[in-house]
Amino acid sequence: MGRATELNQLLKKDYPAASRLLTDFGKRLYFPKGVPAQAAEAKDCTYNATIGQLTDDNGRALPMPVMAEKIRGLTAEEVFLYTPQGGRSDLRRLWKSKLQKSITGTLSLPVVCCGLTHGLSICADLFVDEQTTVLLPSPRWGNYDMVFGIRRCGRIVDYQLMGGTAPARGWTWNLEGLAASLSQVKGKAFLALNIPSNPGGYTPSEAEVDQLVRLLKRHPYPLCIMLDEAYYGMEWEERCYKKSLFEKLSTLDKEKFLVVKVDGATKELFFFGGRIAFVSFNAKGQAAAALEEKVIACIRSTVSALPSPSQALVYSALSSERFDAEVHSIRAMLRERYQVLKDSLANSALDYWPFNSAFFALVATDGCPEAMRKKLLSVDVGVVSFKEANAVRLSYSTLSKDSIPEVVRRIESLR
Amino acid sequence: MGRATELNQLLKKDYPAASRLLTDFGKRLYFPKGVPAQAAEAKDCTYNATIGQLTDDNGRALPMPVMAEKIRGLTAEEVFLYTPQGGRSDLRRLWKSKLQKSITGTLSLPVVCCGLTHGLSICADLFVDEQTTVLLPSPRWGNYDMVFGIRRCGRIVDYQLMGGTAPARGWTWNLEGLAASLSQVKGKAFLALNIPSNPGGYTPSEAEVDQLVRLLKRHPYPLCIMLDEAYYGMEWEERCYKKSLFEKLSTLDKEKFLVVKVDGATKELFFFGGRIAFVSFNAKGQAAAALEEKVIACIRSTVSALPSPSQALVYSALSSERFDAEVHSIRAMLRERYQVLKDSLANSALDYWPFNSAFFALVATDGCPEAMRKKLLSVDVGVVSFKEANAVRLSYSTLSKDSIPEVVRRIESLR
Repeated sequence: MGRATELNQLLKKDYPAASRLLTDFGKRLYFPKGVPAQAAEAKDCTYNATIGQLTDDNGRALPMPVMAEKIRGLTAEEVFLYTPQGGRSDLRRLWKSKLQKSITGTLSLPVVCCGLTHGLSICADLFVDEQTTVLLPSPRWGNYDMVFGIRRCGRIVDYQLMGGTAPARGWTWNLEGLAASLSQVKGKAFLALNIPSNPGGYTPSEAEVDQLVRLLKRHPYPLCIMLDEAYYGMEWEERCYKKSLFEKLSTLDKEKFLVVKVDGATKELFFFGGRIAFVSFNAKGQAAAALEEKVIACIRSTVSALPSPSQALVYSALSSERFDAEVHSIRAMLRERYQVLKDSLANSALDYWPFNSAFFALVATDGCPEAMRKKLLSVDVGVVSFKEANAVRLSYSTLSKDSIPEVVRRIESLR
Repeated sequence: MGRATELNQLLKKDYPAASRLLTDFGKRLYFPKGVPAQAAEAKDCTYNATIGQLTDDNGRALPMPVMAEKIRGLTAEEVFLYTPQGGRSDLRRLWKSKLQKSITGTLSLPVVCCGLTHGLSICADLFVDEQTTVLLPSPRWGNYDMVFGIRRCGRIVDYQLMGGTAPARGWTWNLEGLAASLSQVKGKAFLALNIPSNPGGYTPSEAEVDQLVRLLKRHPYPLCIMLDEAYYGMEWEERCYKKSLFEKLSTLDKEKFLVVKVDGATKELFFFGGRIAFVSFNAKGQAAAALEEKVIACIRSTVSALPSPSQALVYSALSSERFDAEVHSIRAMLRERYQVLKDSLANSALDYWPFNSAFFALVATDGCPEAMRKKLLSVDVGVVSFKEANAVRLSYSTLSKDSIPEVVRRIESLR
């Protein structure tokens, strides 16, 4: 029996939903016993001639000095040599410890991937094909359409989580749209939940999360629930649910529901250029190991290894005693910008979507949002237009606190 | 007309082979006018609220101090913020300049990707599907099978470039195998050329390259020729052809032949953990721009942005006056190891494949190479087995010069 079949049979027994939801490519995946596996077996040999990297006469890294001198407080080995397939295991364990502050239940060992998008793309490779209905939030980050639509040809169905009667200011979390979309699904499907949301900047309350979980629990078909928690931790209001949604979803029936979490250092550690994110499952034991092997094999077939300097920097931050204080201090600054924007909008004549988290606010436009975006460029204000929301998105994460009232005035003046 | 159709029609006119060779996914690809495009338009705005990254009140990066203090001589912006889609343009231009030392003809602006494998995977996404015959060298790096086979379901056909009568020591470059494989192809195909080769460690002479080009020129069907030049520059003998093969292939007829080159900093700059490689085409003008857009859109759908710290380190090396001297000094050390291994093997009773470049040598085994590998582990020698070559691969790049004769003795003793 081939290794892929072995993994698939194991999942069928221990995590039936995962087995039902895998794509053909997902089913084919396994990690072959090639160079990395043979190198791992030889790692304690006096003479290790397995791997195509360069070391000095004592087995240490031998980087070009012109690069090495740019680094301090990190070893040349951790920056310049390959890391294990799936990422540094100490980093994976540290990220798991961090997650376990808000997740007490079943959680696999996170696999490192090359940024949030890579995590989404891995989920798409494993669980989305032409036969899969893919429920995506509307409005959403446009790259969802590249990953799930153009790349994987999923059958995309939009759902809305905010609604009500005009004006948008008064809208609330509203599960009717999602309930309607889910009720049309016959057969396996994929649901992307992006909370805190981009571009909406919204995080539900605990009561709202409970409503969502009750709704999902009633769904009768196999469903992969992917949590995109890129903006985890950036909840600015008391009423926001501050734990990972994974916690409440992880009790869902493993016959029907697969829960996978994508999160990372990109936004949480403000390390945008690092390209370090993680993929974790609601799985343990052999099922967790099988899903991790599928993810690592998938990574092997796209980027193979993951960036070592970025992993070293994330590891050094996570393992530092200063971690909490530094994250807290940067978040406090973001929260101030949030507060100024919230006050400025509330006191303006503009209509806007309720927002309470992440980096963004959606300002409703009377006419075409793309026309509004272009008009704003002419008064030196850059925003992003979201046609499907009839709104422009403001990233307050890149505006100084003092400039925010002026930006709101300029938008108001062009309304 | 949609943007994808526009790109496809342009290629049909200016680079017919590319148009014929694109997969359905390749045809669907275009770069949507989403956040990155809108952010680019707003980059000079006083108030730029387009992008979901964090900057301070003056638009500068605001990394966690615990990470920032690990870096010196690089700006926080180049390490911690996003780089443009397709990678830093200054880095792309510098890499092109470097390539132009050995390539005088048509060459697109290289697109940065996340390591050599990512380059292979992009080529596979664009040009390999279930209907494509994929000609792969045998023996080869095992990950080729993951990328072109398990991921893209190409119809893999092996070809051999070294052959002759026993013993292997006397083998020569031999195009009969490739000619036979090519003659079986009816319709579009994909050819991977990996020179200097892994695991063979072989680079042909100029006369041998000319034979290859003549053979390819006669092929009557559309053919994507992918050059995997990961080990470029590591040619240890005078008789090795030292230019990129791209130079001689770039005059091939653009009606039939698409030439794409994948290379990178991974081996050439000894930056294994960096995950920085490049994809370049035999194209110019609008055809080059169209192919670059396809590649960048493909990257957008897998990892989105590329690692900034790694790009900053590669850029700093390439732009340094010390670059040539430092590369030369490391290569000189590798060449010494090569020479010792070559002499040790020549004076041993072992049979081995002719080798003259890269990091490797293949030692022929009498029996099963995997059994030999396991026996070698028991005497503290780690190697990689290649069943299809009846050989084990020795990476002399990770052995000290002084230890190489002892390693050869241990292999000899177990033969």
